[in-house]
Amino acid sequence: MFQVNDNFQKLPGSYLFSTIAKKVSAYSQANPDKKIIRLGIGDVTQPLVPAITEALHKAVDEMGNAETFHGYAPDLGYDFLRSAIEKNDYQARGCDIQADEIFVSDGAKSDSADIQELFAADTKIAVCDPVYPVYVDANVMAGRTGTYNPDTQMWSNVIYMPCTSENHFVPEFPKETPDVIYLCLPNNPTGTTITKSQLQEWVDYANKVGALIIYDAAYEAYISEEDVAHTIYECEGARTCAIEIKSFSKNAGFTGVRLGYTVVPKDLKRGEASLNAMWARRHGTKFNGAPYIVQRAGEAVYSDAGKAQLKEQVAYYMKNAATIKAGLQEAGYTVFGGVNAPYIWLKTPDQMTSWEFFDYLLEKANVVGTPGSGFGPSGEGYFRLTAFGTYENTVAALDRIKAL
Amino acid sequence: MFQVNDNFQKLPGSYLFSTIAKKVSAYSQANPDKKIIRLGIGDVTQPLVPAITEALHKAVDEMGNAETFHGYAPDLGYDFLRSAIEKNDYQARGCDIQADEIFVSDGAKSDSADIQELFAADTKIAVCDPVYPVYVDANVMAGRTGTYNPDTQMWSNVIYMPCTSENHFVPEFPKETPDVIYLCLPNNPTGTTITKSQLQEWVDYANKVGALIIYDAAYEAYISEEDVAHTIYECEGARTCAIEIKSFSKNAGFTGVRLGYTVVPKDLKRGEASLNAMWARRHGTKFNGAPYIVQRAGEAVYSDAGKAQLKEQVAYYMKNAATIKAGLQEAGYTVFGGVNAPYIWLKTPDQMTSWEFFDYLLEKANVVGTPGSGFGPSGEGYFRLTAFGTYENTVAALDRIKAL
Repeated sequence: MFQVNDNFQKLPGSYLFSTIAKKVSAYSQANPDKKIIRLGIGDVTQPLVPAITEALHKAVDEMGNAETFHGYAPDLGYDFLRSAIEKNDYQARGCDIQADEIFVSDGAKSDSADIQELFAADTKIAVCDPVYPVYVDANVMAGRTGTYNPDTQMWSNVIYMPCTSENHFVPEFPKETPDVIYLCLPNNPTGTTITKSQLQEWVDYANKVGALIIYDAAYEAYISEEDVAHTIYECEGARTCAIEIKSFSKNAGFTGVRLGYTVVPKDLKRGEASLNAMWARRHGTKFNGAPYIVQRAGEAVYSDAGKAQLKEQVAYYMKNAATIKAGLQEAGYTVFGGVNAPYIWLKTPDQMTSWEFFDYLLEKANVVGTPGSGFGPSGEGYFRLTAFGTYENTVAALDRIKAL
Repeated sequence: MFQVNDNFQKLPGSYLFSTIAKKVSAYSQANPDKKIIRLGIGDVTQPLVPAITEALHKAVDEMGNAETFHGYAPDLGYDFLRSAIEKNDYQARGCDIQADEIFVSDGAKSDSADIQELFAADTKIAVCDPVYPVYVDANVMAGRTGTYNPDTQMWSNVIYMPCTSENHFVPEFPKETPDVIYLCLPNNPTGTTITKSQLQEWVDYANKVGALIIYDAAYEAYISEEDVAHTIYECEGARTCAIEIKSFSKNAGFTGVRLGYTVVPKDLKRGEASLNAMWARRHGTKFNGAPYIVQRAGEAVYSDAGKAQLKEQVAYYMKNAATIKAGLQEAGYTVFGGVNAPYIWLKTPDQMTSWEFFDYLLEKANVVGTPGSGFGPSGEGYFRLTAFGTYENTVAALDRIKAL
């Protein structure tokens, strides 16, 4: 008689964003005349730029013609895309990463959930707190996280690294040595980041203790300051301790197009096992390549026209970030992030909890954000607003908040 | 210090199709004047039909316009596609499957590899022999299969159900009771299938012993005979024992487009656990939805124009299948399959092994097929040819084989 993987039953009930959706929907139904502005979920709103839609149309035409039709893609990605990534995201920054260390996928969410399949069952993971829920939940499903304590919102076998205003959102080396460390920088949800020399310290630490860093660089395109690394491979020694996960969702508006990639350097080994070979085998067995037309769209991200158009798109969102940050400060809030990332992280006023402030903002300003506690216990007392709305909505939302 | 999942190291070396590719490439380089015809890998060659390219172009235009742009898709699939599937693939056949039991994905390969995440670690699986390698390999990576014996090509903790000409390729109930049974019907690689009443016996057996059937129906569109089920839910009681996996790769030429779906009925439970809820949670945590444009292409498969054009495409490939079958029979081969599936399974002549016949066909006829033993020990002495080439190449290949 078949039995189920009972680790699934350990997961606490509802997903953060579905709880928010339910609350907003209830408020909307009770107040149909109110115009709600959503600065909650990290989804983009600007359309695909012309360089990308042109590439998509061209690829669709190829697929409709017998001479240029493309069947199964190479499991690991087309050479044209892997080479463009190698050249633009690594070689141009002086980082020694080769095309055959780059694995194209259907997005960073899949990769950041699936990467744990490469680790031993008793692997001890460390995560920042607050954190993107996927890292922990994927490890819960794999049975690595122990038991959940609903009071502390913590798993017994996970190392949490608090990131709060007290430590300027810079995670400290944990007391207990982890096997695998998840770092998302620039950070979701806090919108903050660390300097290149601080990241170098993490690389040195990982190499010293034999830990592996899973480096989620989904928000790299939003970096505006000089001393922030665009990839972990800018740090010396990262090839022996780090896997990097990248997304096209936020730099190119691909949340509904689905494309990402993961870098697994060939120097990443444990005994006889090469993690590069293992990830290749995993892709070859469980994945059938990203769509040809989507990979052509990804290639267009690196064309001259694509780069110019996307630079404008990122600037558009960062103008929103500046608008939110300045508006909140003007209204007397304590605000973090929004300089190297499209997220603004604010301290809730008057000792309100994150969910109290959520309700307050929804009811009084009809603005939707994300409660910090939804990302982990150290997010309590904080609140996230995203820069991914339209400029008009962003300005209107801040006018309402300032008028409270 | 991190350690790797050492189940990966248990996997035997090279993947079947990469071994074939290397042999063909070596022969090609040694004989540059020979024109090789490939009837090996199951990849389609006909371009996307107009109804589908039109839907793709329209969706690309929507993505380039702020008013009609689509960001994150629903994790489980857009309602327009889930409803089209419900209506056309189930309700139209009198099967009680609802849209919220249908989970849209990036393809049947991912789903058939990932579905094992829902099962307990000590689950005992049964597979047909020969078999599509993904079912077993995904369970190897999860540590369920015991040790590999290179002599028998079998895993110590997997139940093999031989399908050969002796039992007319109909798997028999195994002596040891399995927890999970993988069935691919119409079958890859043998191209054979079973009748609806034979499938009903499997459903009854699974319900009796408490086993779960993973039913891979990727080749359903090729069914030509009346008494063959198009979905396992045509059988009474399947809602309490079967998950069905479907692909758009072979019925609509989507091998390079990437779209599939999995049906997990709400009646599928074990204790408190609903497999439908578990798969929804798995999708929500580890997957971010199939691309909007691809889901619109999937919707077009069910339009009147799409249906008519794809019927022609399937007929084109089945004409190839008939050509191969008749040609081989004329040449004196014993041949199976090719009536309800795009694969022809032949007995190698003169006691040749599968790989001996591979070399013989490559060298003497410059035709590439797939050695049956690559799909499992009971495939030894058989050989697979696919109907997915062009008609011209198929005719030419058979002329060469007949001339041997």
